[in-house]
Amino acid sequence: MQTPPLPKGTRDFYPESMRIQNYIFDTWRKAALRFGYEEYEGPMFEHLELYTGKSGDEIVSQLYDFMDKGDRHIALRPEMTPTLARLVIQKGNSLRKPFKWFSLPRLFRYEKAQKGRLREFFQLNLDIIGTESIYAEADLLSAIASMLKDFGLKADDFCIGVSSRKLLNVFLAEIGVADTSKVYPVLDRRLKIGKDDFYAELAAAGLSAEQTKKLDDFMDSKGIDEVASKISSEESKAALDEIRHLFKTLEAAGVAESVALDLSIVRGLAYYTGIVFEVYDKGKSMRAIAGGGRYDSLTEKLGGQKVPGVGFGMGDVVLANLLEERGLLPSSKQSLDFFVASFANDMDKVFQVASELRSRGFNVSHPLAPAKLGKQMEQANAQGAKIVVYVDGDKAPAGGFEYKILTTGTPGAGSLEEIAQIKA
Amino acid sequence: MQTPPLPKGTRDFYPESMRIQNYIFDTWRKAALRFGYEEYEGPMFEHLELYTGKSGDEIVSQLYDFMDKGDRHIALRPEMTPTLARLVIQKGNSLRKPFKWFSLPRLFRYEKAQKGRLREFFQLNLDIIGTESIYAEADLLSAIASMLKDFGLKADDFCIGVSSRKLLNVFLAEIGVADTSKVYPVLDRRLKIGKDDFYAELAAAGLSAEQTKKLDDFMDSKGIDEVASKISSEESKAALDEIRHLFKTLEAAGVAESVALDLSIVRGLAYYTGIVFEVYDKGKSMRAIAGGGRYDSLTEKLGGQKVPGVGFGMGDVVLANLLEERGLLPSSKQSLDFFVASFANDMDKVFQVASELRSRGFNVSHPLAPAKLGKQMEQANAQGAKIVVYVDGDKAPAGGFEYKILTTGTPGAGSLEEIAQIKA
Repeated sequence: MQTPPLPKGTRDFYPESMRIQNYIFDTWRKAALRFGYEEYEGPMFEHLELYTGKSGDEIVSQLYDFMDKGDRHIALRPEMTPTLARLVIQKGNSLRKPFKWFSLPRLFRYEKAQKGRLREFFQLNLDIIGTESIYAEADLLSAIASMLKDFGLKADDFCIGVSSRKLLNVFLAEIGVADTSKVYPVLDRRLKIGKDDFYAELAAAGLSAEQTKKLDDFMDSKGIDEVASKISSEESKAALDEIRHLFKTLEAAGVAESVALDLSIVRGLAYYTGIVFEVYDKGKSMRAIAGGGRYDSLTEKLGGQKVPGVGFGMGDVVLANLLEERGLLPSSKQSLDFFVASFANDMDKVFQVASELRSRGFNVSHPLAPAKLGKQMEQANAQGAKIVVYVDGDKAPAGGFEYKILTTGTPGAGSLEEIAQIKA
Repeated sequence: MQTPPLPKGTRDFYPESMRIQNYIFDTWRKAALRFGYEEYEGPMFEHLELYTGKSGDEIVSQLYDFMDKGDRHIALRPEMTPTLARLVIQKGNSLRKPFKWFSLPRLFRYEKAQKGRLREFFQLNLDIIGTESIYAEADLLSAIASMLKDFGLKADDFCIGVSSRKLLNVFLAEIGVADTSKVYPVLDRRLKIGKDDFYAELAAAGLSAEQTKKLDDFMDSKGIDEVASKISSEESKAALDEIRHLFKTLEAAGVAESVALDLSIVRGLAYYTGIVFEVYDKGKSMRAIAGGGRYDSLTEKLGGQKVPGVGFGMGDVVLANLLEERGLLPSSKQSLDFFVASFANDMDKVFQVASELRSRGFNVSHPLAPAKLGKQMEQANAQGAKIVVYVDGDKAPAGGFEYKILTTGTPGAGSLEEIAQIKA
């Protein structure tokens, strides 16, 4: 037979790339715990209805969905928030709110595989459930800035653009646009499709050229003062005040430098109700590193009580591309504390000494079949061992062993106790 | 709408259960690294042909398979070994062999959900590729014994039963059974189906009652000496010698106490060619904790060169059940280093102090909306904070803060530098 290939749009993680992947996961997890978020997980697939009508048409058109052997219509999860909403609904009032949760879901979207986009990818998700307070947004954005710094990025290497669905909603009403359901997907693609298509698509959604011009101009606003000059109602002023309040808190948290107002941000997901935000590398040379927003009606739409929520997702693909481009990814070589070798292929002694070193907590390897010493040393080097211990060297003290520190080439001999103390 | 339920046979991991799950993953990962294995991963689904005809009929009948939007016949992975074989085939001779890899795959099998069996579960997989040496088996079994001890199990809490497909194969030939393809699935179910069905099913597979009796008796053999008395050919003696050699090495590695010969073990997967083994709790009150064996022809069956391999899988479900029964699971409560509170709801100061504590590496939380101090203290306790820092206490020194060590109830005041030194 012909060996089946890797499915298109997915990845194999050989050990070298897995170490990089684990570095990203570990850094994400540590940052989330540092901000007091608790980890959760859910199943890899959900009943289809959890997504249809809530996540937005684009994401639903990209679902991996199928009938299972029990005739359930199942979909591989394309995003984590609906699962989170289900978890919140299921536990109802028994969950103490507000709470801060995070997850590292593996997600699936059948889209055109291209740079920064795969059909199978990972995300970090942080969410705060159960409060309408803008301090929740402040907490999330502080966490984003903090974790990007953990990866070695500087405050001016990235920009967190902040917008508000609430502000856009009120503005749309102010310029006389009543039905917004078909408008948001167009606004989300605004910078991708160019002026002509933007006008044409909004005309198709029922907007006059004058309305589109006002909207276009509004979304281009630079800074809070310019926005303030374009709005009039109490409601829109309140929405803008919310952004002001957020920026003030971010100043106190020490991350204001990376944050800016950007009303061109709309987000593709259908369920956002308030603040929305996206994170880009400075210069926007890549797709968004992260994106999120407030979704105060999602649990209600899914058949539960209304529970406010806000959160974001940060994908692994764009982030890894950015870190690689900046030379910020760590070494992906294997490393071991010890390699246990034998001149005379005394394999029993090799297993015994390896076992003793491991019981002291060290990472240890050894040959798996009799081999010449030169070959064993090759293995030790290939596996990144710091020290080779020889179980049958004739210069060893009674009960002790010869060894060689591979990083410096220094030979020596001593008891296992002494060898365990070597800093290499 | 009605909220869609959790899909049957899958699990939600709320934070309490996620902490337990992460404890299992971390303990697995540390043990694998201690033995010098390198982590790898693959996609969550593969082309269907990677499983059909190789994994065995039972597993194929339980596949979650479907056509994707590009008309590929896809299956969620039911086991990791075929993916590993694909990775090995793809890289061919550029992989330095032998190598030791591990993975923590999430797997899917559509079977009757019951105690110890779910439709979606996790496994630890350890594999050694590229050597026919029995020291590979010794390495794997040492790792199993070592990691089960990491979980707090004692050497006599579990038993690693060892058998040999090679030995069974030769014995079947010796008693005149030529076609074994329909025989192994029956042998694998022998202890589950009872004597009568065992005889009936083997009769259907072409065996005489006398052959079945010999086989039944052979599989009941206790110890190596009894087996030796029942075999005659050089080939079967060689297969038995291999087991002897394995046991001697495991003695040197200090894990012989947990290992025993058990020819009733056959394993369900179709591709095993040599040593096979299963791990049970002492008394076999549960399903197998782990199982594995040698598969020297899998890469060849999948269209690649012949590359020897041996490995095992350890599932999370039975292991967690066993650890829970023995009271060996850790506390699943959240814990935090600090909770930052404020008498007067000075939220900016709260964000600032939290940010400073986090920059020192601490895990920190704080209120997300103005609240009375009593409510803030409730939150601090619920989140397992060790120390509460008050940003605006009037007894604090200049530039410093009041605090309270929650574990002891001890109050105090000092600079942030001093507070960061408190051991609580």
